[in-house]
Amino acid sequence: MSTETKKKPSQVGESKYGLRVELQASYETAIERITAELKQQGFGVLTTIDVRDTLKKKLDREFRRYVILGACNPELAHRALQAELEVGLLLPCNVIVYELEPGRTVVAAMAPLAALGIVGTPSLEDVAKEADMRLHAALEAVARSDEATET
Amino acid sequence: MSTETKKKPSQVGESKYGLRVELQASYETAIERITAELKQQGFGVLTTIDVRDTLKKKLDREFRRYVILGACNPELAHRALQAELEVGLLLPCNVIVYELEPGRTVVAAMAPLAALGIVGTPSLEDVAKEADMRLHAALEAVARSDEATET
Repeated sequence: MSTETKKKPSQVGESKYGLRVELQASYETAIERITAELKQQGFGVLTTIDVRDTLKKKLDREFRRYVILGACNPELAHRALQAELEVGLLLPCNVIVYELEPGRTVVAAMAPLAALGIVGTPSLEDVAKEADMRLHAALEAVARSDEATET
Repeated sequence: MSTETKKKPSQVGESKYGLRVELQASYETAIERITAELKQQGFGVLTTIDVRDTLKKKLDREFRRYVILGACNPELAHRALQAELEVGLLLPCNVIVYELEPGRTVVAAMAPLAALGIVGTPSLEDVAKEADMRLHAALEAVARSDEATET
């Protein structure tokens, strides 16, 4: 499975869903860092789904630590909605954080270009490209902070 | 624009994003009805983003009444996550409700087949088909209740 591919830690890669980086950091630290870097790029976290808690509560199943953050850059969202009213079906931009093992965590972000590609509206392309660039920058920053703390 | 296409009210149609129905109902009633019908299909609403409030608060811009509901069927989500760990980037299933004018509202749902199509994992196809079918059923039920209340 592509998600299990060994790669150099702290390097932003592209998966078939979007962007992905593996960190030598705790789950909690990874969530804190990506939330801070998203904020730097103008994305607030509007929604948080704790996948583990939800599956435990609803199905009584055990699952790894896993969170889905709904990230939204209001300026970009507004532009996208003006270009295409029903683009709300593709918002917010999902960012996931999950634990591989204690101290090893994955952060991944939906690639808006791929998601908005569903829509097929050329006027959305600029917005999607900017969102893509900003999410990539947030993941790069998280990767750099991970390298800085490795000793 | 396809979203403005005149069609018979209360009929579930397919847009390029997913499924869509236009109701002769108030915005509040539409939200209540789709939430209840989603529940019938095993989908709970995990997240709610009030687009109008968010744009007002963050950008001081006016916008129509518009909500993004994050709907999740825990059984289907669990199956999807087991098939492909990073499918969380595509969860929950978005359902939007927005006002065209007072008493005229649109309800639309992401078509999981289209969204999960991004992933390209054949083992997800069954889950996506079932989610698609259940969301379609919820929209059909909302359309029927709309017809029943038209006099």
